[in-house]
Amino acid sequence: MEISELGEFGLIRRLTEKLKIQNKSTEKGIGDDAAVLNFHNKRTLVTTDLLLEGIHFNLEYVPLKHLGYKSAVVNISDICAMNATPTQIVVSLGISKRFTVENIEELYSGIRLACERYGVDLVGGDTCSSMTGLTISITCIGEARKDDIVYRNGAKENDLICVTGNLGSAYLGLQLLERERIVLQSNPEAKPEFEGKEYLLQRQLKPEARLDIIRKLREAGIRPTAMMDISDGLSSELMHICSQSGTGCAVYEDKLPIEESAVDLAAEMNLNIVTCALNGGEDYELLFTISLSDYEKIVPLTFDPDEVSIIGHITKPGFGLNLIGRNGEEIPLRAQGWQAFSK
Amino acid sequence: MEISELGEFGLIRRLTEKLKIQNKSTEKGIGDDAAVLNFHNKRTLVTTDLLLEGIHFNLEYVPLKHLGYKSAVVNISDICAMNATPTQIVVSLGISKRFTVENIEELYSGIRLACERYGVDLVGGDTCSSMTGLTISITCIGEARKDDIVYRNGAKENDLICVTGNLGSAYLGLQLLERERIVLQSNPEAKPEFEGKEYLLQRQLKPEARLDIIRKLREAGIRPTAMMDISDGLSSELMHICSQSGTGCAVYEDKLPIEESAVDLAAEMNLNIVTCALNGGEDYELLFTISLSDYEKIVPLTFDPDEVSIIGHITKPGFGLNLIGRNGEEIPLRAQGWQAFSK
Repeated sequence: MEISELGEFGLIRRLTEKLKIQNKSTEKGIGDDAAVLNFHNKRTLVTTDLLLEGIHFNLEYVPLKHLGYKSAVVNISDICAMNATPTQIVVSLGISKRFTVENIEELYSGIRLACERYGVDLVGGDTCSSMTGLTISITCIGEARKDDIVYRNGAKENDLICVTGNLGSAYLGLQLLERERIVLQSNPEAKPEFEGKEYLLQRQLKPEARLDIIRKLREAGIRPTAMMDISDGLSSELMHICSQSGTGCAVYEDKLPIEESAVDLAAEMNLNIVTCALNGGEDYELLFTISLSDYEKIVPLTFDPDEVSIIGHITKPGFGLNLIGRNGEEIPLRAQGWQAFSK
Repeated sequence: MEISELGEFGLIRRLTEKLKIQNKSTEKGIGDDAAVLNFHNKRTLVTTDLLLEGIHFNLEYVPLKHLGYKSAVVNISDICAMNATPTQIVVSLGISKRFTVENIEELYSGIRLACERYGVDLVGGDTCSSMTGLTISITCIGEARKDDIVYRNGAKENDLICVTGNLGSAYLGLQLLERERIVLQSNPEAKPEFEGKEYLLQRQLKPEARLDIIRKLREAGIRPTAMMDISDGLSSELMHICSQSGTGCAVYEDKLPIEESAVDLAAEMNLNIVTCALNGGEDYELLFTISLSDYEKIVPLTFDPDEVSIIGHITKPGFGLNLIGRNGEEIPLRAQGWQAFSK
């Protein structure tokens, strides 16, 4: 059977359905942003990501330092998405002959920068040659108190749906880079037209994990009922939360936080900005739900558009997953996010 | 600068010299078989390995189930080499289009078998498509009491040097597979000549981690003073232990544990069996040192040649690292092990 017939999630389901848990210390295995291990009453979290050249990144326009930074951040983001604190990473690199020592130092300087920024220690790894291209595999460890950990399955009817920052910018940054790459191919003398769009590039090339929001939620006394980070796109992540929580949801089009230059570029490139915001992916913002009773507490965080926006609420399962359009129309949400095994 | 000029260890040194540790929970970072994290008084260990098609394995002769098993075992072995208990793994796969769902299920069945055999839980991972070939990245987590953990740097003068099982068999198994592959290329009708050499193939294709010995040492009341697993070859690992412990060593040629069919195949292929035992690699046996005062305790483990052999002793640093030949001659040891970035 071709893997594309099953898709990534189908394949993972098929591979993992026979797994049995043998250790008492395994509190939560596959199925969330990170695994949760109970070693010593406190909890240790583990997540891992594999990034492959030509699949996850294109070195024609991604500087190695940014790539290193992003590779670490996407893992750190997964630990944040469990409402936990990232503490350590291990880094494995497969390196082909076309890379020099200086190249790899540049990549590492980005990883180191992310470690410093997020207070994470690089504690190990594996480095070897590869036949083709660059392979980066990072595993991140984190810690949390048991009661602080937030899974995907805790959303309840009437909970408020929140996202941090804004949506679609990372996707539009990628479209911009792709457009300029093609221009450059036909005319090597062309100057890239990035002016006024630096923010979108930064969102694609140097995303941040929202550890700041995790801390602010804690200070505000809010424990989300469900949470994950937005790597595949808002629609796809909403489906995970609703299917694991056994609920539906309603999200309001006019509440989706979208940055101005993203609106402009979408118009310029003839892309539907709402589709970009719903399905773009790679924003690494947090999607979370909170109890309605925490509304008062979250309000101060909604004053800064880069912090939190309330975009909808959780509904009964029978209501499905809907986008409520500007004229009140209900549009069923579909996950068109990142397809790891598309045909 | 070409990476081959620095080599794997030089590159790692260069990349990691600027790292600063920021978390109290990081007890030991880079530089041993696994990192040691102090979360909650007890210790959590982390190690990771990256395996790339065409570099670490050749699917022309490695069955996918065996590959899955071995990929898990090499990580489990690293946790054992810290005198710790492996508890969880996370598995990332990069899969090219030529693999079917059934292929990946076969690979996974091997990983699962290793998990069952060693009591380890598979708790997460990442699965994505790759442009070229198969990429396997596994991170293993383990646990130990602080006082049980054994590093590479604890060997003292007069300590006994021990190895488990036998040496060189995995390397000879690989030579055998390579020989038959070449025969098969020139004559597709040829039957592979593996009779009487099944043990060597098994050592290459399905190595085991010596968790059994870790348990037996504990039962015997022995805590090794230094330990690591033999992945790159005995000479290379002895160099790590001696350089990190600030000692020399003397290892006796006639004490090296070598299996009979390995001796036979080496003769048949015109290979020096002692060189195979010293530099072969991939045996995944344990190399460890114990205090001379533990001699009585280890003796019962030396009765079974598959358990422990005493092969030499630790010396003052000035004495260097020497192999004592059958006629008493001193031959300086050189690490010719696995070169991840050879020219």
